[in-house]
Amino acid sequence: MTDRPNTPVLDRVNLPSDLKALSDRELRQLADELRAETVSAVSVTGGHLGAGLGVVELTVALHAVFDSPRDKIIWDVGHQCYPHKILTGRRDRIRTLRMGGGLAGFTKRAESPYDPFGAGHSSTSISAALGFAVARDLGGDPGDAIAVIGDGAMSAGMAYEALNNAGHLGKRLFVILNDNEMSIAPPVGAMSSYLTRLYTQGPFQELKAVAKGAVGFLPEPLQEGARRAKEMLKGMTIGGTLFEELGFSYIGPVDGHDMEQLLPLLRTVKARATGPVLIHAVTKKGKGYAPAENAADCGHATGRFDPVTGIQAKAKSNAPSYTSVFARALIDEAGRDERIVGITAAMPDGTGLKQFAERFPRRSFDVGIAEQHAVTFSAGLAAGGLKPFCALYSTFLQRGYDQVVHDVAVQGLPVRFAIDRAGLVGQDGPTHAGAYDIAYLANLPGFVVMAAADEAELVHMVATAAAHDSGPIAFRFPRGEGTGIDLPDRGEVLPIGRGRIVAEGSGVALLSLGTRLAPALEAREALAARGIRPTVADARFAKPLDRDLILRLARSHQALITIEEGAVGGFGSHVAQLLADEGVFDGGLKFRSMVLPDRFVDHDAPMAMYDDSALNARHIEAKVLEVMGVGQLADRRA
Amino acid sequence: MTDRPNTPVLDRVNLPSDLKALSDRELRQLADELRAETVSAVSVTGGHLGAGLGVVELTVALHAVFDSPRDKIIWDVGHQCYPHKILTGRRDRIRTLRMGGGLAGFTKRAESPYDPFGAGHSSTSISAALGFAVARDLGGDPGDAIAVIGDGAMSAGMAYEALNNAGHLGKRLFVILNDNEMSIAPPVGAMSSYLTRLYTQGPFQELKAVAKGAVGFLPEPLQEGARRAKEMLKGMTIGGTLFEELGFSYIGPVDGHDMEQLLPLLRTVKARATGPVLIHAVTKKGKGYAPAENAADCGHATGRFDPVTGIQAKAKSNAPSYTSVFARALIDEAGRDERIVGITAAMPDGTGLKQFAERFPRRSFDVGIAEQHAVTFSAGLAAGGLKPFCALYSTFLQRGYDQVVHDVAVQGLPVRFAIDRAGLVGQDGPTHAGAYDIAYLANLPGFVVMAAADEAELVHMVATAAAHDSGPIAFRFPRGEGTGIDLPDRGEVLPIGRGRIVAEGSGVALLSLGTRLAPALEAREALAARGIRPTVADARFAKPLDRDLILRLARSHQALITIEEGAVGGFGSHVAQLLADEGVFDGGLKFRSMVLPDRFVDHDAPMAMYDDSALNARHIEAKVLEVMGVGQLADRRA
Repeated sequence: MTDRPNTPVLDRVNLPSDLKALSDRELRQLADELRAETVSAVSVTGGHLGAGLGVVELTVALHAVFDSPRDKIIWDVGHQCYPHKILTGRRDRIRTLRMGGGLAGFTKRAESPYDPFGAGHSSTSISAALGFAVARDLGGDPGDAIAVIGDGAMSAGMAYEALNNAGHLGKRLFVILNDNEMSIAPPVGAMSSYLTRLYTQGPFQELKAVAKGAVGFLPEPLQEGARRAKEMLKGMTIGGTLFEELGFSYIGPVDGHDMEQLLPLLRTVKARATGPVLIHAVTKKGKGYAPAENAADCGHATGRFDPVTGIQAKAKSNAPSYTSVFARALIDEAGRDERIVGITAAMPDGTGLKQFAERFPRRSFDVGIAEQHAVTFSAGLAAGGLKPFCALYSTFLQRGYDQVVHDVAVQGLPVRFAIDRAGLVGQDGPTHAGAYDIAYLANLPGFVVMAAADEAELVHMVATAAAHDSGPIAFRFPRGEGTGIDLPDRGEVLPIGRGRIVAEGSGVALLSLGTRLAPALEAREALAARGIRPTVADARFAKPLDRDLILRLARSHQALITIEEGAVGGFGSHVAQLLADEGVFDGGLKFRSMVLPDRFVDHDAPMAMYDDSALNARHIEAKVLEVMGVGQLADRRA
Repeated sequence: MTDRPNTPVLDRVNLPSDLKALSDRELRQLADELRAETVSAVSVTGGHLGAGLGVVELTVALHAVFDSPRDKIIWDVGHQCYPHKILTGRRDRIRTLRMGGGLAGFTKRAESPYDPFGAGHSSTSISAALGFAVARDLGGDPGDAIAVIGDGAMSAGMAYEALNNAGHLGKRLFVILNDNEMSIAPPVGAMSSYLTRLYTQGPFQELKAVAKGAVGFLPEPLQEGARRAKEMLKGMTIGGTLFEELGFSYIGPVDGHDMEQLLPLLRTVKARATGPVLIHAVTKKGKGYAPAENAADCGHATGRFDPVTGIQAKAKSNAPSYTSVFARALIDEAGRDERIVGITAAMPDGTGLKQFAERFPRRSFDVGIAEQHAVTFSAGLAAGGLKPFCALYSTFLQRGYDQVVHDVAVQGLPVRFAIDRAGLVGQDGPTHAGAYDIAYLANLPGFVVMAAADEAELVHMVATAAAHDSGPIAFRFPRGEGTGIDLPDRGEVLPIGRGRIVAEGSGVALLSLGTRLAPALEAREALAARGIRPTVADARFAKPLDRDLILRLARSHQALITIEEGAVGGFGSHVAQLLADEGVFDGGLKFRSMVLPDRFVDHDAPMAMYDDSALNARHIEAKVLEVMGVGQLADRRA
């Protein structure tokens, strides 16, 4: 790990302005060195490797031609930004990527003026770039706006909405379509086939042909001939008709790894463009690093690895991941019920739907990065008599929220939402936090909302969701490994709206929803030394609430503490509403609700994030002592 | 109003199956009668007129050719469904449209098996239809799936997501693009221009040419010639290249009012289609009823009117609408600050942005039905140094929720959200209820969330939002007229997170957020007769909470009641969290939180909906008596 690559040109670069002094030949060398430095850094930190390697030349070319930070380079999703970070004053911290206190794994406004718009979720860059372009023309920040967006991200409706609006407004704006035929998984959908046709129906255009395509940017005398050439190209259906129909000048496809194409092209469009331009660059994810190029996911995300061999350090695993437990449970249920189908939005690996698809290819649907459609498509499947399991990350379900409300909840359709990555998510940080789903689902009439306390509970919840035909149902579970608990042979259908007492006690009742149950039990053990034995219960359901259980706990204890890995407005709020409605507060109840803090929690190791959020065992213990009036904490409110 | 049109053919139709016995000539007459009946009904009820009139022939043709309810006809948005309702067993109730207990103004599954998928929001139909088509092919409900979607709805990303996925899956599926060059307002965006080009670059194709376009559906021997004809047509750029690129067979444009084109075309595609087909039908909103055809909005939505003259009954108006007060206040602020810009998503009239656009055309942006883009575009504008006011209905902001979280809140960008139609919305019913915004915004770190108690407060909140540069800020206000209160000459910048005492009292404190302040004051007056004088306060802010005010009220009263027009998880929940954290419940506090009920509230007159939701003055009064232990209500919990 101490062997750093030899990077004589890169060593002369601290900021993008340093690139202006380099010759084109040096820029080519810079790209090679930047690639080596990226591999070296990620071998130490782990992270997103393939995407960054695919845009090394683009990164160098953009910074060489445009003037960041005056010009705004906006990396869609942001996970391809490591080379960009190295060139924009952050090389000295690049080996802290995704670590607590270190650089974020995505672009982040708070981190650098060279990150004009942060990301994490996909397909936002064109909208943001259009905002910068319009602001510029109305007297806001000057400079160009350049969105770099992958072909996978183009399957999301918001990218289309933005293209549609940008084509209409006609502002000077650059969209670089980074077409690597991959998002995380191989992309799906008709748009993807269309893009493939664009570059498979002809060889890459030589620079000359590219320049002809860029007819609007050529000096007047050349234009007539160029226009004819362009028409001819269009006749050969190589031209990007679709984008031109939407109002963009289309240029491409160009080889996104060929600096001899990229540099003159970017210089030309920078000098000449008056309206929106789409440059279609074909790249290879993982480019130039054989282990990534040869991996099935092109090195999408990786742990630490040996930079020479590409072999990853084995992560110690004590228990199966929640995702894999979900996948197995769903396959198991689907083996017994042929109406079960699975839907994912471009995350077959992340959600475990890939395993389901291998077993049930006809019953598995990857709709692309298209959560809005995923939800309403699922609603249609349910209305058509099937049992759809719509498997999304909590943070991405936000994209389909209106569809959850309008198409699923209002109609009471039995869509099953399998919500992975609920709660804090470690190194991905605040853009990916699954903090809001309890609040935004449990307030919807007729919804059943569950949270799994461990992986055995998850198996039961899959069975419960499969059996629940009378309306929408959701179950959330966290990122990462389970607790190692024994898994049941077969999931048990839980009674809707019933929690369970896990440990009887007295004085204080701890009512947990989801995976904070384990730290609650830990806290109970620690408290035993002081003679305090709280009752510990697992609510299982955020909706409908287990009224009997909650009222019984409230009335038979002096204090009731709810615990959840979610923002205010969720489980604890619903419990408070019940207690208020029932007049339980009238006579006094030491009620506390432990929720995620009211701030975005920075990326870090999971345990550190729980500490930061005051949701670990010791915080639960302290909260119990506080309400019992034990120790100095008791005086806090005085 | 008693003059019903003469409808001899329609009188023989109760269900779509009755259309099978009619000749094509009779079907044409049926269309004419259906149009007359629709005008007659809406003249009595008010409602969406123009959209229904535009699809009368389509409605008849679809029901004549397909077999509903086995075949699923899915009307996008659903507001054009009145003729459909008349033909599907609901003619006897058509004059109860949008009234309490009457027919819904949209399609609704609970209302009829002929409504396979309800709507209210736009652009969901293709996703839903694809769900039905896939379910059918996997052994679910049999029958065809037909989505009828307007050109305005095509600007929404989710329609594109669905086309993309449908083109990929290749299932038999029909999409009828109802191209009337109008959504509610004239549509905007590049897609709209594209559609216009499709039918303005050539005359309508004769039926023969249409058949040639439908090459895939012709008997084999005819195909070669037809294919050549099709290629020729495409060469003339009449063909719908864009849809074909996405994997659809494109047929059109056809005259959507010409039954002689529609019937044979639908019969042909029904007999022959194996994959996804898009039929591009050009129609006229308001067709066949001169007052609607000639109106600027083509009779989009109307009150009751004289069916002969088209003159609407004047609605009595006591006070300006909240929307118009917002528009004036925004124009006022924008006159002093040129960085203020306005963004609407296809609702310039509904949000008042139209008036703003007349005054500041360069600073006004209608992005189409594209809330996701609207939000992130606004974020880009804010990052570029402007002050964007993103004006959306509460229910439609749900479409941009992930963008609110990921692009605005996580980055702390000062986007101003003007949230119209917050709370219950009367005749539009549950699909349009603005019930969730407090919960889904106030749980986001760094957000400022305000609710206007009256239209003067709204003016102050516009000024406050304009002045607030340090992060996102939202203000919500209801549908309809203000209270009639005097408006200030100029909005006052409110201190962030400070409420106000409106009436001092004792014993019980009523803490209202938003427009339930007036009924709270009414309740106070009614209670005076019993010697009860509650304190009444206006919280103004759901976030940040006015801690001092809330704790003072809690500690100086025996009871505290929060009131809001929103679902659980919102203001009352945040207050409960504060009170719990501060230990206020420990010693007992009669705390109640009055929120919208945990069910979807059916469409009705506004006052009736508040009654149904138990949020009127008498309910507040009853709640006070309950917590005071006065009257029989006091024993409710015993």
